Order: sequence, then structure tokens, then C-alpha cells
Amino acid sequence: MKNTIKITLGFIAIALTFSSCNNSKSSESKGGLSSSAAEQVYVKPGDHDEFYAFLSGGFSGQLSVYGLPSGRLFKVIPVFSQDPEKAYGYNEETKPMLMTSYGEIPWGDAHHPDISQTNGVLDGRWIFINENNTPRIARIDLSNFETSEIIEIPNSAGNHSSSYVTDNTEYVIAGTRFGIPIPQRDISIKDYKGNFKGALSFIKVDKDSGQMDLSFQILMPGFDYDKAHPGRGKSDGWFFYTTYNTEEANSLLEVNASQNDKDFIAAVNWKKAEEYIKVGKFKTMPTKYAHNIYNDETHSATTTWGTSVKVLDPAECPGLVYFLPTPKSPHGCDVDPTGEYIVGSGKLAASLTVHSFTKMLDAIKNKKFAGEAYGIPILNFEDVLAGTVEQPGLGPLHTEFDGKGNAYTTFFISSEVVKWKLGTWEILDRQPAFYSPGHLMIPGGNSQKPFGKYLVSMNKITKDRYLPTGPEVCQSAQLFDISGDKMKLLLDFPTIGEPHYAAGIPADLVAPKSRKIFKLEENKHPYATTNDADTKVVRDGKNVHVYITTIRSHFNPDNIEGIKVGDKVFFHVTNMEQDYDVPHGMSMIGANTSEVLVMPGQTETFVWEPKQVGVWPFYCTDFCSALHQEMQGYVRVSPENSNIPLSWSLGEE
Amino acid sequence: MKNTIKITLGFIAIALTFSSCNNSKSSESKGGLSSSAAEQVYVKPGDHDEFYAFLSGGFSGQLSVYGLPSGRLFKVIPVFSQDPEKAYGYNEETKPMLMTSYGEIPWGDAHHPDISQTNGVLDGRWIFINENNTPRIARIDLSNFETSEIIEIPNSAGNHSSSYVTDNTEYVIAGTRFGIPIPQRDISIKDYKGNFKGALSFIKVDKDSGQMDLSFQILMPGFDYDKAHPGRGKSDGWFFYTTYNTEEANSLLEVNASQNDKDFIAAVNWKKAEEYIKVGKFKTMPTKYAHNIYNDETHSATTTWGTSVKVLDPAECPGLVYFLPTPKSPHGCDVDPTGEYIVGSGKLAASLTVHSFTKMLDAIKNKKFAGEAYGIPILNFEDVLAGTVEQPGLGPLHTEFDGKGNAYTTFFISSEVVKWKLGTWEILDRQPAFYSPGHLMIPGGNSQKPFGKYLVSMNKITKDRYLPTGPEVCQSAQLFDISGDKMKLLLDFPTIGEPHYAAGIPADLVAPKSRKIFKLEENKHPYATTNDADTKVVRDGKNVHVYITTIRSHFNPDNIEGIKVGDKVFFHVTNMEQDYDVPHGMSMIGANTSEVLVMPGQTETFVWEPKQVGVWPFYCTDFCSALHQEMQGYVRVSPENSNIPLSWSLGEE
Repeated sequence: MKNTIKITLGFIAIALTFSSCNNSKSSESKGGLSSSAAEQVYVKPGDHDEFYAFLSGGFSGQLSVYGLPSGRLFKVIPVFSQDPEKAYGYNEETKPMLMTSYGEIPWGDAHHPDISQTNGVLDGRWIFINENNTPRIARIDLSNFETSEIIEIPNSAGNHSSSYVTDNTEYVIAGTRFGIPIPQRDISIKDYKGNFKGALSFIKVDKDSGQMDLSFQILMPGFDYDKAHPGRGKSDGWFFYTTYNTEEANSLLEVNASQNDKDFIAAVNWKKAEEYIKVGKFKTMPTKYAHNIYNDETHSATTTWGTSVKVLDPAECPGLVYFLPTPKSPHGCDVDPTGEYIVGSGKLAASLTVHSFTKMLDAIKNKKFAGEAYGIPILNFEDVLAGTVEQPGLGPLHTEFDGKGNAYTTFFISSEVVKWKLGTWEILDRQPAFYSPGHLMIPGGNSQKPFGKYLVSMNKITKDRYLPTGPEVCQSAQLFDISGDKMKLLLDFPTIGEPHYAAGIPADLVAPKSRKIFKLEENKHPYATTNDADTKVVRDGKNVHVYITTIRSHFNPDNIEGIKVGDKVFFHVTNMEQDYDVPHGMSMIGANTSEVLVMPGQTETFVWEPKQVGVWPFYCTDFCSALHQEMQGYVRVSPENSNIPLSWSLGEE
Repeated sequence: MKNTIKITLGFIAIALTFSSCNNSKSSESKGGLSSSAAEQVYVKPGDHDEFYAFLSGGFSGQLSVYGLPSGRLFKVIPVFSQDPEKAYGYNEETKPMLMTSYGEIPWGDAHHPDISQTNGVLDGRWIFINENNTPRIARIDLSNFETSEIIEIPNSAGNHSSSYVTDNTEYVIAGTRFGIPIPQRDISIKDYKGNFKGALSFIKVDKDSGQMDLSFQILMPGFDYDKAHPGRGKSDGWFFYTTYNTEEANSLLEVNASQNDKDFIAAVNWKKAEEYIKVGKFKTMPTKYAHNIYNDETHSATTTWGTSVKVLDPAECPGLVYFLPTPKSPHGCDVDPTGEYIVGSGKLAASLTVHSFTKMLDAIKNKKFAGEAYGIPILNFEDVLAGTVEQPGLGPLHTEFDGKGNAYTTFFISSEVVKWKLGTWEILDRQPAFYSPGHLMIPGGNSQKPFGKYLVSMNKITKDRYLPTGPEVCQSAQLFDISGDKMKLLLDFPTIGEPHYAAGIPADLVAPKSRKIFKLEENKHPYATTNDADTKVVRDGKNVHVYITTIRSHFNPDNIEGIKVGDKVFFHVTNMEQDYDVPHGMSMIGANTSEVLVMPGQTETFVWEPKQVGVWPFYCTDFCSALHQEMQGYVRVSPENSNIPLSWSLGEE
């Protein structure tokens, strides 16, 4: 039996993954790119790109910032993983950002960035992104492109149907992909069915500060909640989630979770949920989760701990959740800018299913149900169906919208992007993607107001598209011009990590907010040294605190004596520069941590535990000026029993 | 006194760093880029770039792989720093790569990549790169773009004048920037002068395997050895090093190390050194250094320890080292393709100094010395001078060559690249760089055979060149076409970390060697599972070894029971795929390590120490197929005193 399965799966894998590569290649050469593609993507040196594109890093755990149309990578923002380059997760200030109920975790799996909205339109204030492996959501501040906050999601596993925001960023949501026992307990995996659950989480976002707060959870059956999309406009107040594994299988899901002809899209009425919470129709479940906030004044993060969560049971809350049958193992779940159409992409389905929000409300109103699952009403497929796109391609995954009545869907297996018309369901255009696209992104394409000029397809398989780099090749994005009737391929550009989803926004909604000056007197770090005269070295038992400053091109102090083997030395490095793009770095030979790369007006701390007697150099790790090479210093480390007193100096021979 | 210094330094810093920005901007707009620059850098989707460019990551610790002329980033190769994306430094197989005599170090400062050569011509086999902070050299294999080896350099601090290779890659070299007591001891920093030393290290490279071996060191006076270049052709057998801080200052070097009118270029006759070693004219110094080698068959690294090093004292070895006086605080040290000219760029000098190798040999032959320093003969400046480039710009740093008799030098302060003629010393062209270039790179430009088509200027300051990204903006590269008489600016592209130097090579010297198939039977990892029937879970006390396989789209096993709180679970993940670009990933919820991203035919191991009873999911972290979302599994964790036996399964309901 095992052999049979293996052979079948092998065949499927090969067929699914590679069948399209050769075909796609040939259709490319037929297409004949006009030379003006070069001009369209060329951003003249010194000129600025028109759009920001924020691509999730996937297994890198980070968020990458690109410019469009150039495809140039400007920055990798550290979010869920350690980053030795920026000391993120290594220095004392950011270590708390990676705290969870499981302890400090050096890595995360970042999936779906989503930009904050006001009235269903991108407002460019924050970008949220989910972590899949150890469920979390992060908020990044777009005024400084740094991670401001990470909240852990309890009662969850595989936080995949996340992190999307509602029309006015009232909520950012999380949703569990893997069923687990809730609360966790020692139970056989074989007892999955009926015993394992999935939690959908609603995290309230403060409309001024952006700060997140775990508001409530809805405890769902143990299906896999794969992707999600908020209602827009007319459907604002609802959230839609695709499910698969409604079979509730616990092993070999590629076979066992592909049995049912239809799975569900779960429609959740979150305004109704708010009412149930208000009237106390929830259970309070004890739990523990980390909430890590980076303070922009102290330049330091702190962790606080959540201890309980309000949980709603949909079986006990009529009108809270409905199931919309959707063929088969739907992955993508996308709502068009008007809020009327809910697109469910059955990965294994031959056609693309679009549900109607209006019809859904009618069916609910008329109580036309096909049955129920764990107390949740199931609507009739035909009652909610708006239409189907017939024979669109193989392996549909995700859909975005251009705001002109068109939808664009990626097809993983047939490796293409297909443009089709909302309402008539006719296919207008199809272009090959190289190869096997996952998500696609149109700036604003999941909001009420898409900026429908460019489309980025994020492709999972690259193969021979770039110069070879060994067994590991990058994943790849492709930029299409979608301003005309037909899509036009402009550019292939490589990507960092594994981009799942992306969020794009016109640059002029973000760039003007970017701070340029960082005043020293605004630095409220507890160990900041904002005046050169205040630099000092202070002993507190075995702990030694070095208050040290950097300015082109010296450290103050730059000679330190009186440190002993066995000491724990805290270097609190304050950068006295105040203008952006003038960091200084600092590192010690043999330090078992990363350097610190200190931004202007900030203080960062690294710890050094000298183990050997001697004189040990430190230096500026960022080429800061013509005399950068001269920016160095020494620490003398004496034996543990030495009587040499602490001393420090600058500029003495 | 302190105030005076501060004000002066402030002025210098501002003047040095920013004076040129506005001027440069205006000359750009005068230049008027022709539209064909867009065509020149555009690589049509699916077409390949003409050159690889390997840019050091600087404070990222890694090596970035770009294509030219597109400026696209294909891969970041982890070398000296942990990389959560690739599990480098997190999984059991690569942790030993970051071992040093100071313990495991998660971060490094990567500076100067150099590609192996045969007969002075790039051969595309390996690329070497130095780590500055905790002195090390790494070798990367260009058949798989992975770090193969890292060797620590003892008796060294600030390994900056590194890692360049000789004409036949006999040696790759290291050189200390910071003087230190050798051996290390408890001595006052004030006693620097005469007591602190600098070691120049010669690392032998095996001509077949590339394996490095610390051959010998030369113990030099405590100057700062900044940059280095091997002789080429006629000067093969020599190495040249710029020095600064010949003042032997220990504090506020930006002032105190800028006093001498001339510092030195140290000319080291390494063939003579070999003779001295051969006749036993060395001292053996006990020391300890790590040597970390990644085995391509076991896919695992191991650390061995060096225990001593052969040291030569130049005062006792006549003919080994000479000093060439060079104005002032020279940084760049570059030898032209013929080997005749040695360019020393005095950072604070008004003209560019070029020494003549022939004249140097004559002066040595005639024993015309101006004096000696610590027993090392000093030649007369005039006796070795080939010529000077007058008023070339401000703050010269580095020079590369096009193989057509032209040199190109970066000027940090006046922010430009200047083209000049070897022999006549006339200036042929100058182009602004945006802003403050450090190194520049012409593919092969430091070898006997440059491929003089493109030049990349690596700029330290970016400011407003791209869309803003907060206080931190990327560093930036600029691509010039140097095929004509005048340089032509083609493209600005952002870079990762802080590129110091780079190495470029025609793609056809590397790409054809890239392996595509990775056979399972060649996997000699001690915990590899090369047959699906051999997957198993084995308990050894508190240690549990999970032999688990991945293939599209399942794990085998995918249900594991009998794990207990307090166990240490080793997941040995073997990827059964054999074709490049088909990794699978694996992670466990809450694991205090990164995922593993397992390349085809390989095995990687991560450790999980479950602390809570429950059922915990794992999944594939790389979107591997249309049924990737179904590629998951569960581990049941029971209480420590539980009697549940180990069991595992795949495909059972």
C-alpha cells in the first residue's frame, strides 16, 4: 500500500511542479518583449521609484522593501528572526522582541503583510505581518521602517490565515492552520477528529498609536483555516476564511485531506462577535502569551504577558459564523473592492468559485441551510454562488483586483496569471509566469482602492531564470504592466527568502512621513549619554557599564582599563549623530554577540564577557568618514584578582 | 583642549563627508544620461547576466551574489554570521562553522572577497573572504555557492589587510589592522609603542582541494596594516601592505595617527619567507585557533584546533621586508596587471603615489636605504617612486585596472571615480559617485587579466538616492560602462550590509560548473535516511533521534508519539529530492532554533526540547508543490513520567 501511495504522489509532484516549465518557455519567446520594457522599469540614477513593495520573507522571517518598477531591494526589515547585520535579536534593546511563551525564538516564518487602511483605502501608517510557525503578528511603523510591536497568538498553531486588516484597521486578524487540542493536553494524534480545534483571533488596533490588543477568539472546528480576507465596503463587518481538511485527517494530508468534494469558506460576522462579547457571551480561558513593544523614546523593547483570552463558541452564538461550500481544498480567499464578490480558489478544482455577499445575506435571512457542522450552519452552494470562471487554469491560488472590474488569479500548476472579468466571469488574458506563482500583488489590490498599474507575481520555482547559484536558487518575482487590456511582462527580479504575499503602496503615501532628524535630547534610553562630558565606566559588582559615545571619527572613551576576567561588560553605545544615514557600529574582538549598528540619536547595548587577560581592540563597523579606519579603541583586561582601578580616556598619549 | 579637538573634528567630519554631495548632484544633471543606459542594464526576463559580482556584506558578515549589468541580487551566502533563513549557524551541521578560540560567534565583519587565480587569471574555483573583527578567512566553493571552510587567524586583531590571493593561489593572506600584545598579556594601553605588534599571516591553499593551512606569520611592528595586494607577473613572490599609525598612537587616532608626513607600504618577499621557513629560521609560538571544514559528503562541518604557528621576525630575516615611504595614512594598496606599479592612496594626501617595482628592486640591490624601523630597512621615497597623479581629487581610497593601461581610483571626500593613465599619470576622466565611494571593482581588475567592460563603485553614503526607509538606508553601488574613453554611469543599485570590496567574474567561468543533481546515495550524513523504509524514531536515554524524510508533499513519519517533556529531540531531516531548486523546510512550533531548509540530497538536524505536554505541529516551511499546505505532521508530547511507547506513522487514519 505504501509503495502505491509513493508512486502516485511522485507522479503528482512531478506533474504539478514541472509540467508547465517547457510550455511556458516557448510561449515567452513567442511573446517577443518590446524594447520599451527596459525603459519602463529603468529608474534613472537618483530618481525614485513610484511604488514601495513590501514582500514577506517567508522562511527568512523578515519583510523586504522593494521599489517598483525597478525591482530594487532597499531594505530587509528584521521582524521575526535574528538579524546579525542590524543586531536585531542580539542587542539588549531588541532581544525582548523575540520573546514568546516558548521562550526567546530566533526565527519566524513571515507570510502576509497588510498595510493599514482608513475607509478601505491604504493610509501608509503601519504594515502588519503574521508569523506562521509560532503564531504571532507584528506591526511595523512606516515612518521609520522598524518593527514596533509583536503580539503572540495563543490557542493557535500555524498562524496562516493572517494578518489582514478591516476597512478602518479596527482589527488585524490571526487564524490557525493546524488544529490542536485547546487547551493543549496529552491526547493521541489519532483522536484528532472532533477533539482538535482551530482558533480565529481578532486583534484590536488602537487607531492613534496602532498598538495591538488581543480582543477575542472564536473557537472553530479542527479544520485548517488557510487564508482570509475582510469584507470591504458593503461586506465590511465580515471576515471570510478558506478551510481545507474538513475531513479532519491527521496524517498524509496530501491524500487524506483531498477527499471531500467541497470544503468551506467560513463567513464570520465580527460586528456580531463584538455584540456577543459586549453581552458577556464568552468564556475566559487562561493562557499565556507575550506582547513585545518597542518604545521609540527609550529605543528599547519590553515584554508584557497576557494571561487570558475571551473565547466565543460559534455553536452558542447564532449568526456569528456560516459555512459556504467551496470546491476543493480552497486556498486563496479574496474579496473584490466593492465587497460583493468572495473568490475561493479550490487548489484541486477545475473552475474558480465566486460567492456573492448579497446572496449570502439573503440565504441567511431566509434561513436556507444545507445542514450544519459542529453547530455552524452550512449554506447551499447554489444559493451563494455568484458565478464560476470556467477552465481558468490549473491550481488556482490567489486573486487581486485592479479597481476597474477585473480580477487576476495565479495558477500554480499551469504556471500563469489569468485576467478575468468580475460579473461576466470571462477570461480576458493569460500570461505565463516563471514558474509556479503563489501570491500576486497589485498595490492596494486587496483594498477598496487598488492602484492598478503594476502586478507582481511571486513565483515559487526559479530554476534557470537567473545565473546558477548552486542547489539553492532565489525565489523570483515578475513585474507586469496591467495598465492596458493585456498584461505585459516587464521584468524578472529575484527576491529574499520566500515571498508569500506582498503589499504595495504609492510612494507618496509613505515617503513624506519619513523622519530625517533624530535629536539627541529625545533619546530617553536609560543608559544614553547625550553629552560627551558624561561618558563614563561604572562598576556594579561583576557588571561594568560603559557609557560610550560615537561621532565621526572617534569613540569616547577609546581606552579603558580596569576590566577583569569574569566581568560582564555592558557597552551602552550612543550615536551622537542626529542625521539619518549616519550610523556608527561597534564590536569587540571575540564578542559572543553581534556588533551593534547604532542609528543616529540612539543607544544600543551589547554584552561582552572577557575570558582572557590581554588588550582587546574595538572599532567602528560602519565606514563612517574618511577617517573611519582611525575610529577604534582598546580595553585592557586584567586577571580576576587584579587591583587595577577602572580608568578611561580619550585623546591622551 | 578637548573642546578644541571636538570642534575641529566636527568640522573635518562635515567637510569630509558632505562637501561634495551638492556639487555631485549638479554635475549629474549636466551629464544627461542617454536613454540607452536603460537598454544596457536591462536583462530580458529569462536571459542571464554577463558577470557575477560578489560583494562583501561588511557588517552583515556575509557575501552577496549579484548579476551584472542588471544589479540584481541572486543570493546572500552565509559566511561569518548566523542566517536564520538558511539555518546557517543554527543547525547542528553548520554550528561548527562559527567556532573560534573565543567560542561560537554569531557575527562577523566580512571585507574583501578575492577569487582564486591560476597564472594570474581568475579561475572561478573558489572565493576567499576575510573577517575583520575576530580574525578569520573563509573559502566559498563556487560549484555550490556554499561556505566550505573557515580558518581563524591567531596573533591578530582587525584582520583588514586580507584576503588576497597570489598569482597561482599559493597563498591567501591575512594582516592585522590593530596592534596588540603578542602573545596577549596584561599590559597598560599607554605602553603601546614598541610593545604592541602586528602579524602578517600566510595561509597556504591546497591547489586541488582548496583547503587552507596557516603556513607562517611575520611579526611586524605595531603599525596598522590596512590593505594589501600581491605582486603580479614580474612582482609575483611579493606582497605589499599599506600601513598607517606608524606613529604608534593608542588613542584618538583620527588626530594622533595623522601626524606623520609619510607612512609606509611594507613590501614582503614571501618567496624569501619560504626559504627562511625551510631553513628553520622561525620561532614556534604556541597558540590556539579554530579550523572549521564543511564536508560535502556528510553535509556537516567539524572543527579542528591549531596549537602553534611558525613566526618570522623580519629584523632577523634580511631581505624579507622593506618599507616604502608613502604619503599620508595610505589606505588602498593596488598593483597593476603587469606587476610594475604599486599604487598607494594616502587618504590625507593631495596627490596619488605610485611606486615602481623595478626601482624598488634596484634600490634594494644597491642597498640605498633611508634608515630602518624596528630592524626593517626603509627605502628612499624618491628611489622607488614611479610617478604621482597630481591633484586627482580628495581622499583617494582604492584603484582598479582595466587591462588597457588605465587605472580607476575612488575619492571618498570629493565623491568621484577618476580614470588616469599608468605611466603618464594624466587624468583622463572623472565621474561623480553618489556618495563617498569606498572600494570599486572591475571584474578581474586586481588580476593580470581584467575584464574591463564594467566598473562598480561601492558608495558608503546613500542619503536621498532611493525612496526613504527611515534612519537606516541601504548602501549603494553604481555601475559604470568603461568600454569607451569616458566612463558612463548606467545604474544605481542598492546593496546588502556594507560592501567593502567585491570580486567580479565572467559568468561563463563559473556557471558551467554549477551542479544540478544531488544524488541521494551520495549523502553520507551519519543520520541520513536515503530510503523511505528506513525512517524511524530512536530513543537513547533523554535523547530521541527522529530519522525523517521529505518529498513532495509529505513527511515520513508525520505522526510521532511517545516523546516526553524533558526529552531532547534531534530531527534529522533528509530531503529525498535530488534536483536543484527543490528544498524542503521543517520547523516545530515554539522551537528555540531556526527552521532547517534542506537542499536536495542533504540532511539537516535541528534540536527541539519540548517543555509542555500537548500535541505540536510541524510543517514544510518552503512552498514546495501544489499540495504544500498539506505537508505537515504532529508530535505528541506526554508527561515526563508517561509510559506511552515511541511510535510513528505515515498515512494511517
